[in-house]
Amino acid sequence: MKKLLDDPENAVADSLAGFAAAHADLVEVRGLDGAQPLFVTRAAGAVPGKVGLVSGGGSGHEPLHAGFVGDGMLDAAVPGAVFTSPTPDQIAPALQAADTGRGVLAIVKNYTGDVLNFETAVELAEAEDVEVATVVVNDDVAVEDSLYTAGRRGVAGTVAVEKIAGAAAARGDDLAAVTAVAQRVIDNVRTMGVALAACTVPHVGKPSFDLGDDEIEVGIGIHGEPGRHRVPAATASEVTRLLLEPVADDLGLQAGERVLLFVNGMGGTPLSELYVVYGRARSLLEQRGVTVARSLVGDYVTSLEMQGASVTVLRLDDELERLWDAPVRTPALHW
Amino acid sequence: MKKLLDDPENAVADSLAGFAAAHADLVEVRGLDGAQPLFVTRAAGAVPGKVGLVSGGGSGHEPLHAGFVGDGMLDAAVPGAVFTSPTPDQIAPALQAADTGRGVLAIVKNYTGDVLNFETAVELAEAEDVEVATVVVNDDVAVEDSLYTAGRRGVAGTVAVEKIAGAAAARGDDLAAVTAVAQRVIDNVRTMGVALAACTVPHVGKPSFDLGDDEIEVGIGIHGEPGRHRVPAATASEVTRLLLEPVADDLGLQAGERVLLFVNGMGGTPLSELYVVYGRARSLLEQRGVTVARSLVGDYVTSLEMQGASVTVLRLDDELERLWDAPVRTPALHW
Repeated sequence: MKKLLDDPENAVADSLAGFAAAHADLVEVRGLDGAQPLFVTRAAGAVPGKVGLVSGGGSGHEPLHAGFVGDGMLDAAVPGAVFTSPTPDQIAPALQAADTGRGVLAIVKNYTGDVLNFETAVELAEAEDVEVATVVVNDDVAVEDSLYTAGRRGVAGTVAVEKIAGAAAARGDDLAAVTAVAQRVIDNVRTMGVALAACTVPHVGKPSFDLGDDEIEVGIGIHGEPGRHRVPAATASEVTRLLLEPVADDLGLQAGERVLLFVNGMGGTPLSELYVVYGRARSLLEQRGVTVARSLVGDYVTSLEMQGASVTVLRLDDELERLWDAPVRTPALHW
Repeated sequence: MKKLLDDPENAVADSLAGFAAAHADLVEVRGLDGAQPLFVTRAAGAVPGKVGLVSGGGSGHEPLHAGFVGDGMLDAAVPGAVFTSPTPDQIAPALQAADTGRGVLAIVKNYTGDVLNFETAVELAEAEDVEVATVVVNDDVAVEDSLYTAGRRGVAGTVAVEKIAGAAAARGDDLAAVTAVAQRVIDNVRTMGVALAACTVPHVGKPSFDLGDDEIEVGIGIHGEPGRHRVPAATASEVTRLLLEPVADDLGLQAGERVLLFVNGMGGTPLSELYVVYGRARSLLEQRGVTVARSLVGDYVTSLEMQGASVTVLRLDDELERLWDAPVRTPALHW
């Protein structure tokens, strides 16, 4: 294993220390000394009168979630060990830190550990008089259950949930309204991914799975958990069709609808290839009479250095489009 | 070779077509039909009364250069084939498209092909009454000459040159002033990189070089050309020291100075590792009494999916800092 790390056991804290120093204008990382629970908040503190937004999950998906803490998106993010849920002891103080009296929305990706630990943390926070609502993101159409999940996994669509709910909170919506718009994104967003090569978890030291020299895994999870099927490596056009069609079919997209098209890199795929996939996915949508009204292309929900990509489609309406367009200022998303 | 591409021979045009569609609000790609020379311009056209800024070079380094076309940065970018200089026939019309009568600055990375082809293109543009000044970026301290270069190579420091010269042009500086500030950046920026694993050029189909399982190449070029030495894989702290110290020494950094610290990913390295390197480099600078006043961490000058990173340091003064902070709105850099 070759990685730019010191002690692999300390990779998450080392990385967050650099992250905190690089973005000190936007974020603050608490608990780097190990004496307190580890989580990321806004440098300027919670915004009085605003509903708080908290997310979290295993590390290794950077910039998700810590990279989305800032104006117009998250108030706190809770990083677990690599591909491992954060603990309730970390999540509960992050929920408290994000609260200014109007309540907090917890955005949870649908993995069993995340769901359980957030549930426990919510109970702890509620015991401290923090009102918490929870939404569970489950956008991955690839498989119904998986190694780590009952039901569908939460993957790249999480970025859209965090961005749009963040904009709703920033404009002053109350907790019920922020929760409702987050759920509307979840109801209208679908994703499917493909891996060309595995990643190596630092404290494991060997690749998470093996793929043949001429083999790809369609429907891969963001922890390398199995997808739908392994198929021979194919052209970008063919692979994109294998990703886009289940997504569009599951959404029930109709001619005349408008969508956000998001092509996400898994960490080890050149940006130039993501744009090829984007172009192919857009053509397939246009062939269905669907208009791509908004776009995002890049590495936002990664699996360390995994080679691969996912295609996410979000059905837009006027309000979701306005909330997507609202200003955002975080380390990883900015407009 | 597994890549998300259709015809490897057409990878650059396919990618640029997706790029153009995803960022139609900011950029326009001309010549995608193959009937005209291929280059990228602003969607809104050149800005009347502003000095034009043009850069370019081989593809495979995305988001450089096309990702930096937009407000506050480049007016046009000229992509060659992967790791291959663009031709004078492409560059000359890009120079013309960027001109609104106040002249154009060409920002060229120091590779022999780029330098020669830009020289020829400048002659062609001058024959059409476009005034062109040229600066050559040569920030790589690793080697004095290389496979493709007489003198030092131009690498990640190019981002700082394009950002800061772009801000000077945007505020209305004339061609001489924009050229002078670009040259001041070049005089004060240095970079060194490391590779952990090679990349594969699409139309070649096999890795550019071989590295042993426990070997890294220090001082690598952005085309995989040889660096200073191959050494056993080491910790992030040790590797960062091998990169940062030659950079700081060559700059002659003194205690009390302020710098921009830029840790650039080569394409296949997790963002989390870049932040570890950033933290280590920042500590080394602080040990020298140098203040890190501005930061940039991410994949900006890549080598396809190469695993590795580079460390860039730019000595700041008040004006360079103000120009760095000035608004920028491009596909890849935005604040």
